[in-house]
Amino acid sequence: MTGGHSNPLFERVCLIGIGLIGSSLGRAIKRHGLARKVVGCARRAETRQAALDLGVCDTVHADPAEAAAGSDLVVLCTPLSGYPEIAERISGSLRRESILSDVGSVKQAVIRDVGPFVPDHVHFIPGHPIAGTEKSGPEAGFAELFEDRWAILTPPPGTDSHAVERLSALWRGVGAMVEIMDARHHDRVLAMTSHLPHLIAYTIVSTAADLETGERQEVVKFSAGGFRDFTRIAASDPVMWRDIFLNNRDAVLEVLQRFNEDITALQRAIRWGEGEVLEDRFRHTRELRRGVIEAHQAGSFDPREPEKAQTAAPVQDKTDPPES
Amino acid sequence: MTGGHSNPLFERVCLIGIGLIGSSLGRAIKRHGLARKVVGCARRAETRQAALDLGVCDTVHADPAEAAAGSDLVVLCTPLSGYPEIAERISGSLRRESILSDVGSVKQAVIRDVGPFVPDHVHFIPGHPIAGTEKSGPEAGFAELFEDRWAILTPPPGTDSHAVERLSALWRGVGAMVEIMDARHHDRVLAMTSHLPHLIAYTIVSTAADLETGERQEVVKFSAGGFRDFTRIAASDPVMWRDIFLNNRDAVLEVLQRFNEDITALQRAIRWGEGEVLEDRFRHTRELRRGVIEAHQAGSFDPREPEKAQTAAPVQDKTDPPES
Repeated sequence: MTGGHSNPLFERVCLIGIGLIGSSLGRAIKRHGLARKVVGCARRAETRQAALDLGVCDTVHADPAEAAAGSDLVVLCTPLSGYPEIAERISGSLRRESILSDVGSVKQAVIRDVGPFVPDHVHFIPGHPIAGTEKSGPEAGFAELFEDRWAILTPPPGTDSHAVERLSALWRGVGAMVEIMDARHHDRVLAMTSHLPHLIAYTIVSTAADLETGERQEVVKFSAGGFRDFTRIAASDPVMWRDIFLNNRDAVLEVLQRFNEDITALQRAIRWGEGEVLEDRFRHTRELRRGVIEAHQAGSFDPREPEKAQTAAPVQDKTDPPES
Repeated sequence: MTGGHSNPLFERVCLIGIGLIGSSLGRAIKRHGLARKVVGCARRAETRQAALDLGVCDTVHADPAEAAAGSDLVVLCTPLSGYPEIAERISGSLRRESILSDVGSVKQAVIRDVGPFVPDHVHFIPGHPIAGTEKSGPEAGFAELFEDRWAILTPPPGTDSHAVERLSALWRGVGAMVEIMDARHHDRVLAMTSHLPHLIAYTIVSTAADLETGERQEVVKFSAGGFRDFTRIAASDPVMWRDIFLNNRDAVLEVLQRFNEDITALQRAIRWGEGEVLEDRFRHTRELRRGVIEAHQAGSFDPREPEKAQTAAPVQDKTDPPES
């Protein structure tokens, strides 16, 4: 799919931010020989040391401008709130014809915040691998994280197609499937598939956390009944998710408004004992579940287990059952 | 833990309703030799035939009164809405000193609907195994379903303690851990751990199902970002869940009200860009997740894999990661 170490896609890849995603990308690029050199950048000395110890990068820097200098690919892997300062600092050191990308979960805000700092001679291609775990930090990363996952790229109109293809090849090289998408469309779709679910999971766990002690202990004890799934989602990194909600505000508020209307309708049906309304609604959702299974997105609970999303063979639904 | 076939706990166990739970209970009772005879009852001829073919019961009946007659344990395993009619029909055939129980997810409503039909010479002990999958029907059952799961019993005050112990022994015999609880308390705890999560999962999937076609297809395609977990929960049996919400109305409406207040607060924080409010809330929930992991309820995604809930050893958190 990609060249080996003798003919890598990039000479020098710079990863700014070496958390879960950055360290996974570094490991994957090195494993597949996709770059001659991987350079890491992190503010904290312990993170830089961990990145070296774990073999995530070949060299590390504290200063983003130093790290970016001479790189033909720079990828921002910090929480979104760090982007504007980093973009300003690296702006002057970005190499001619190099690619600047990122892995953030929101894309319009990245174009808004980073775009103004990108020199004309640099290809700016925001990206978002739909992959991750609820763990954080360089130790949490692993080279297989992106295998059979989607990597969405949102190049602004007019972006050089060769640069887009080169970055796509990198993502395919680490095992991902690439999709090119408009940034606004990305933000709307992800608001529904990811941001709203996380907001709701955080909320329900927070609601439970506010119960009085006795009930809270029993909620923990009997959490197998559905609640447990929500606690897992709600264990994700607080800063990363704060930034996502602040930076995809309009799309999140819109789907949240729709969700509120829908749950209010169900609330009313419960209050007035309207069984048919409830049953109809519950049947309706089963169909979408079927679509999800058919799209081969359901079925795997091991992030390293391929979901066979590109094959035509149906996969068995092996997911963990909810319990009543 | 329990006697073998030579000295079973019960002579004749009658399961009214042979869906996921009923058929699992039948298989488990037979595997562990906990009853001399297992009798099934189902309205539909295909279900009765399937139960015989699958070896879930020794004999089957269409008439609940015939099935219950002569049994020393009768367990209602139908959706909750079927209980009043069944209770009325079996009332006259319940054997002296027999036990009448059920597996419904709500307990106060069962006492309200079934209690009046229970003769004085019968021990009425409502029960609820916190186990299940999103599948339905006799084929979906399996003997290991209850292993290392909680089975909650809610005997009304004054219930014969020997009868409670005998029913507890049955649940322990199929691998469950037994907890005795007040019915009202059960309904409040389960409203939080199970009913509210299911209502929310149904709602968010329903919200997505109502998107226009193009966006809906992309939601399905990129569902790995958190949404997928919700579709699984929302695939559960519509009639069973309709009945749960109708029968645990007050407790569900109360936790739903709390949830609404909490999500409104987060919505406001997003609208006004209050990052600290979001981050604080998200950190807060991480602590409860830690409690869930420590309570050994988290970590297993195979329903047949023991969660080691009774051991002191910490279990690793092997759950599927959410993705951003």
